[in-house]
Amino acid sequence: MELPRPCGVVALLTDFGLVDPFVGVMKGVIKQRNVQADVVDYCHGVPAHDVETGAFYLGAAIGRFPVGTVFVAVVDPGVGTARRALAACAAGCYWLAPDNGVLEPVLARDDAEVRTLDLDKLRLRPVSRTFHGRDVFAPVAGMLSGARFGFRALGDRCPDPMRLPGGPFAGPSRVVSIDRFGNLLTNVPGARVLAEGWRAVRVGEHEVPVHGTYGEVPPGRALALINSYDLLEIAVNAGRADEQLAVAVGARLEPIVH
Amino acid sequence: MELPRPCGVVALLTDFGLVDPFVGVMKGVIKQRNVQADVVDYCHGVPAHDVETGAFYLGAAIGRFPVGTVFVAVVDPGVGTARRALAACAAGCYWLAPDNGVLEPVLARDDAEVRTLDLDKLRLRPVSRTFHGRDVFAPVAGMLSGARFGFRALGDRCPDPMRLPGGPFAGPSRVVSIDRFGNLLTNVPGARVLAEGWRAVRVGEHEVPVHGTYGEVPPGRALALINSYDLLEIAVNAGRADEQLAVAVGARLEPIVH
Amino acid sequence: MELPRPCGVVALLTDFGLVDPFVGVMKGVIKQRNVQADVVDYCHGVPAHDVETGAFYLGAAIGRFPVGTVFVAVVDPGVGTARRALAACAAGCYWLAPDNGVLEPVLARDDAEVRTLDLDKLRLRPVSRTFHGRDVFAPVAGMLSGARFGFRALGDRCPDPMRLPGGPFAGPSRVVSIDRFGNLLTNVPGARVLAEGWRAVRVGEHEVPVHGTYGEVPPGRALALINSYDLLEIAVNAGRADEQLAVAVGARLEPIVH
Repeated sequence: MELPRPCGVVALLTDFGLVDPFVGVMKGVIKQRNVQADVVDYCHGVPAHDVETGAFYLGAAIGRFPVGTVFVAVVDPGVGTARRALAACAAGCYWLAPDNGVLEPVLARDDAEVRTLDLDKLRLRPVSRTFHGRDVFAPVAGMLSGARFGFRALGDRCPDPMRLPGGPFAGPSRVVSIDRFGNLLTNVPGARVLAEGWRAVRVGEHEVPVHGTYGEVPPGRALALINSYDLLEIAVNAGRADEQLAVAVGARLEPIVH
Repeated sequence: MELPRPCGVVALLTDFGLVDPFVGVMKGVIKQRNVQADVVDYCHGVPAHDVETGAFYLGAAIGRFPVGTVFVAVVDPGVGTARRALAACAAGCYWLAPDNGVLEPVLARDDAEVRTLDLDKLRLRPVSRTFHGRDVFAPVAGMLSGARFGFRALGDRCPDPMRLPGGPFAGPSRVVSIDRFGNLLTNVPGARVLAEGWRAVRVGEHEVPVHGTYGEVPPGRALALINSYDLLEIAVNAGRADEQLAVAVGARLEPIVH
Repeated sequence: MELPRPCGVVALLTDFGLVDPFVGVMKGVIKQRNVQADVVDYCHGVPAHDVETGAFYLGAAIGRFPVGTVFVAVVDPGVGTARRALAACAAGCYWLAPDNGVLEPVLARDDAEVRTLDLDKLRLRPVSRTFHGRDVFAPVAGMLSGARFGFRALGDRCPDPMRLPGGPFAGPSRVVSIDRFGNLLTNVPGARVLAEGWRAVRVGEHEVPVHGTYGEVPPGRALALINSYDLLEIAVNAGRADEQLAVAVGARLEPIVH
């Protein structure tokens, strides 16, 4: 595989939130290694320790950033244990993350090349046992974004990265996340909704009709639609579906096709 | 009007919050079109679907960014319906937003030139029906910030953009927003407070004296002042006015001038 | 002292949060003075008016940003009163802040040179009385980051900046902060834990064993460790220590060494 040329963008995905200075310290360390790096906050709102949601958010970035972006994904409940640190090249970008499944959408790409970070060779030891975002992933991102260190020099091929079988949200059709607007994100692909001709969806006590966008029902009415992730979503126009329908993450869904 | 030369800065204002990856995806798409764009988070804390507060926050940016900044304002409850997408040039900057009033402070400028984005001409179709921040406004911002596409090529003049008559917070004197510190922002212009010689303000059960800054009253005491937006604000020194005065958004105000 | 050459990075630390547009306005003003400035959000989650936590977060940035970074620290309960505005040079970076102790970790450095901003000379008057982040610190940061105004031209030496005696979190051993993950940050230096051979720590009703990292105890079990700040921290593996141990900021700690 021809490796993409780093474009200078470093995009950060973490479960650190923005109340503590963890993300800010990572930015500083990246820029110590490459002061020209263009560090972009992708998202820091992954629920704490939630590798599946982290993987899902990572997947939403594929194809949406410039070629040569270096992504850093730190959702790392196993920090300081023997878990490996990985670097992947796929879909025109670089991806750094702990070896815990958060890279799943990248690893699922045919073109993925995966390497294990060799911390001794990279002269990154000693590191803290609680903050590899700062001590491992940020310096490697800085080096890689500045092209001072080639991807293939980061370490040997990793033949067996941890996977999330079936993707980030495998299993039965259900609500997997609730967004800022109270919309209920599901794991049902839009293509399935179309192929099977879902007319509505049953969730809890409710039967919610499928429409094209929020404004196709009156304010305060529930609807389902295929959202910008190409997944089925349940919403209330100008309202909050989570509160109005009293539905939580994990709620099961059933299609209504007749 | 002579158009300002884009300076490379793209400033984002949304009601998306920072928990979901919506803002991050917009950043990636902007940089796909212009990898040199300097994408700045202006504010993502507009209350969900609150066009008036979005317009107010947008107004607070006028004159505070470099000439040639491209602003993207996505507070878009009507996404996916027939509402238009607009581009304006005013006050030395460019402004992209849905046609729902969020551009009010820009449209109120004498020098405003407004155009309707021509999505076919811009080759932006098809787009999702739920995320025009990603599919319309971000790519246009990228193009415009890189000067690859002139403002006047974005579409025809829009003669009738939606307005918010009287400005973002028209109507009776009242509390319109509560900030991070629990300060009560009002819609009363500071100039009016000075011209009419307000000595204090009545809100709920309370009579609050007008001072120059927080530290002019003892800690724990309420005061009113003319804040950095040049609006009357009610605060408690080293405390939270919202809790201490038990006042919410919408509470009416009366001047005390005697 | 040889002054470091500004590298173009401007890092922001405030207690403004990200819901209001205060931080965004500061970014615009910085870029009005230096459109090339690389403005980085370090952290805006300092609790409102909490100078001690602000100072602590500032200290966590020392040595973690490139040489020549301009730091702006706005935790400013005394805004608009007679308190001075300071600029310091120490540890290879520049630091702008109100004179209220938030600069303590910088002032404690042997190499610190401190100056009082001369607002008249800098032509920054008149300024608002409530938002010196926008009207004083942002423009100075822009000027300084672009090297258009040398550090020593900002004002005279300040012989007596306000200090926090004993550092940001002086006093008895206790919980000083709770992070995003529910981990309890303490003011006990890791070096003390090691030197005194702490085997465990008592907090509230609990006796918590000292380990190396989270994953060394089973999920749901409490532990103490030396964290990435080199301070003692109390955590629950894959859980929230604050909730599980029912411990709040201020809780006292006792070592167990036998």
